[in-house]
Amino acid sequence: MALIVQKYGGSSVADTASLKRVAQRVVAAHRAGHDVVVVVSAMGDTTDDLLDMAAELNPDAPKREMDMLLSAGERISMSLLAMAITAEGVPAYAYTGRQAGIHTDTRYGKASITGMVPERVARALHTGSVAIVAGFQGVNDRGDVTTLGRGGSDTTAVALAAALNADVCEIFTDVDGLFTADPRIVPLARQVRKLDYQETLELAANGAKILHLRAVEYARRYRVPLHVRSSFSDKLGTWIADDRPASTLAGYLDPDSFDRKEQDMEQPIISGIAHDRSQEKITVAGLPDKPGTAAELFRQVAAADANIDMIVQNIAVNVPGRSTITFTCQSGDAKDILERLEKAREILDYREIVYNPEIGKLSLVGAGMRTNPGISARFFEALSKAGVNVEMISTSEVRISVIVDADRLDEAVRALHAEFNLDAQETEAVVYGGTGR
Amino acid sequence: MALIVQKYGGSSVADTASLKRVAQRVVAAHRAGHDVVVVVSAMGDTTDDLLDMAAELNPDAPKREMDMLLSAGERISMSLLAMAITAEGVPAYAYTGRQAGIHTDTRYGKASITGMVPERVARALHTGSVAIVAGFQGVNDRGDVTTLGRGGSDTTAVALAAALNADVCEIFTDVDGLFTADPRIVPLARQVRKLDYQETLELAANGAKILHLRAVEYARRYRVPLHVRSSFSDKLGTWIADDRPASTLAGYLDPDSFDRKEQDMEQPIISGIAHDRSQEKITVAGLPDKPGTAAELFRQVAAADANIDMIVQNIAVNVPGRSTITFTCQSGDAKDILERLEKAREILDYREIVYNPEIGKLSLVGAGMRTNPGISARFFEALSKAGVNVEMISTSEVRISVIVDADRLDEAVRALHAEFNLDAQETEAVVYGGTGR
Repeated sequence: MALIVQKYGGSSVADTASLKRVAQRVVAAHRAGHDVVVVVSAMGDTTDDLLDMAAELNPDAPKREMDMLLSAGERISMSLLAMAITAEGVPAYAYTGRQAGIHTDTRYGKASITGMVPERVARALHTGSVAIVAGFQGVNDRGDVTTLGRGGSDTTAVALAAALNADVCEIFTDVDGLFTADPRIVPLARQVRKLDYQETLELAANGAKILHLRAVEYARRYRVPLHVRSSFSDKLGTWIADDRPASTLAGYLDPDSFDRKEQDMEQPIISGIAHDRSQEKITVAGLPDKPGTAAELFRQVAAADANIDMIVQNIAVNVPGRSTITFTCQSGDAKDILERLEKAREILDYREIVYNPEIGKLSLVGAGMRTNPGISARFFEALSKAGVNVEMISTSEVRISVIVDADRLDEAVRALHAEFNLDAQETEAVVYGGTGR
Repeated sequence: MALIVQKYGGSSVADTASLKRVAQRVVAAHRAGHDVVVVVSAMGDTTDDLLDMAAELNPDAPKREMDMLLSAGERISMSLLAMAITAEGVPAYAYTGRQAGIHTDTRYGKASITGMVPERVARALHTGSVAIVAGFQGVNDRGDVTTLGRGGSDTTAVALAAALNADVCEIFTDVDGLFTADPRIVPLARQVRKLDYQETLELAANGAKILHLRAVEYARRYRVPLHVRSSFSDKLGTWIADDRPASTLAGYLDPDSFDRKEQDMEQPIISGIAHDRSQEKITVAGLPDKPGTAAELFRQVAAADANIDMIVQNIAVNVPGRSTITFTCQSGDAKDILERLEKAREILDYREIVYNPEIGKLSLVGAGMRTNPGISARFFEALSKAGVNVEMISTSEVRISVIVDADRLDEAVRALHAEFNLDAQETEAVVYGGTGR
């Protein structure tokens, strides 16, 4: 018998009908003898509706009040789910972030978990009940509600799974799992059966939207096995861990089914292609080519509380003693960064700033890169054949990322998907099959 | 400078536009130099919408989860109001029942306040901020959210006003104050300018829906002056206290304006007429006329957790050694009571049960009754003239109540309103005038 943490996102609990379906799934796992902890997001558009009202009343709303406001969404969904499960004859108790012992720092809107003491959750399980926990929220030392940022419910679920030493943390979503690429761009994209933490981190960090990056980091640190799957079917999803599923899960899912048959024939080199349209590019041209310039530049950027992603520095070709730094940031942060750079013009002593919001980022991810040389040659060859110009490059042990023109992003993704044989074959269709495999 | 607690009901915070209007009213009081604590209900239909969803998922939902669910409504309205006030340039902080130190017992759905420690509220006032508190909710010793029952936000406001020693607790609603009768039944009903606690208690207990009975009891016990007024105008409402407004309120409202001019001419004997359609009548006929019978009967009724209101006992005319007991209860409780009485037929040894849901209760309330004999004669004479049959009677020091046929209730209210000269005169129209009077 296993301890299972299930997390349901907003689309899985959009209305009372969906809540009933989720309740039945939870009850089935509980009736099979497992301990079940459920983490829920707010129902459907609740969070967006609350944000709209807040924006109408105060475009610059205090963050403490914003977190209190947004936390109401999960309280509604968790209470209703507890009622729906109880209606099926299984005792269920819902807990807020505070009641579930989720302590955070005080950074409203993007708090980090500083401590997990899910004592009431453990007690509920001990008495044979289902425990439901509000995703996305915690409490700080002042006794105020904090939220973990968009997608924070994933983090709540993984953190609970880690604290309770769960056998698996299941992330239920509206798709079947992680895919080799976004199926809206690549119709032949295949579901990925199994990923290790490193690959998943790279995919999540580089634009795959199914999983929250912080949740994956948490899962890797505490070795929490993740299972990303659809709340609309019983199909197996994507297994994320460095190991196979625990034997305790045998009655719940088929551990063997995650081992791809085709691995006997050929180790897949590439797991998937992530893309990201949310970045923008800023080039600061003609900076003095001397020590400290880059440090001062990024001090200014950091003051905007912005995360920058890729950075490239070049010598300015026609201007001796000058260099150029280009970096990418999230589109929401660009305005603030540009204003700060403008103000710091004298300190930084640059010649020009070029701002390009029309870029796309594409990342090829695969653990097989570690042992397969020649991947990057094939990568750039394929982009070149497709006529896609590369503007920036960055790599990690298991990833190659490039910035390309936004208009060419889809084409670039498709070209690489084909080049690395990720396109689904006729016979591959069974990959989507039920739990029987 | 005064400390003012303002409570806004659901219709006063129905949407973002209403929240803005409330924010402006709060800010005006704050800018005038007063300390302002605001208690809010859930926005408009939020609570009903949540109840509908809950009923759909589980008609017999666990009460703990129900309280958690319903408490979300006030968290939304209070956070949004804090944002709206902050947008006006005044610092504002919103506090849940727990954060405001509102401790209750564990009777979910109808919890009683057991302790008030509004430390954070007092600190917010001390720093020159507006403090907003979620109405209707508290926290029990287990750390779980409880609700105070329908209308519980009034109780929250009065309890806070008592704990903070406020100069006034203002109950903002969608009508101008308390009236001599329901204006939907008596078009000539007048607004009452001033009531003492006893009169208000009798009105609230006997069907006047503007104020929650428990809130009035709380106000009387702790001598909290209440001001019931409209959130849609600046008109003076109804002042409820045994004294005149405190002099500290002079800059906020005109204490003199609550002293009716017409009192010089004639002390009003009757303050108002309350009516109540929510009661039903149960008659248990042919009970053994011996000690203990009534006790056993009401033990059975109490087991249904029902509040009974009026009770009449008669000797059964044609059956020697038998008596008949008739009582009224809230309509929602009748079914359970009838089932229990049916089951207890052998123990109670009665002949027959007669159930009549088609009754109406009418109560004439006025402090002047204490010193004016002959009121009851006029009361019954007027009903008799109007051809209204009286089924049950109960009285207190300042009240006469009767049960009549539901169909005749409106007529009875109108007849008494005219008999006791409560109908508005042409010149009385200025009673509704602005704060200038």
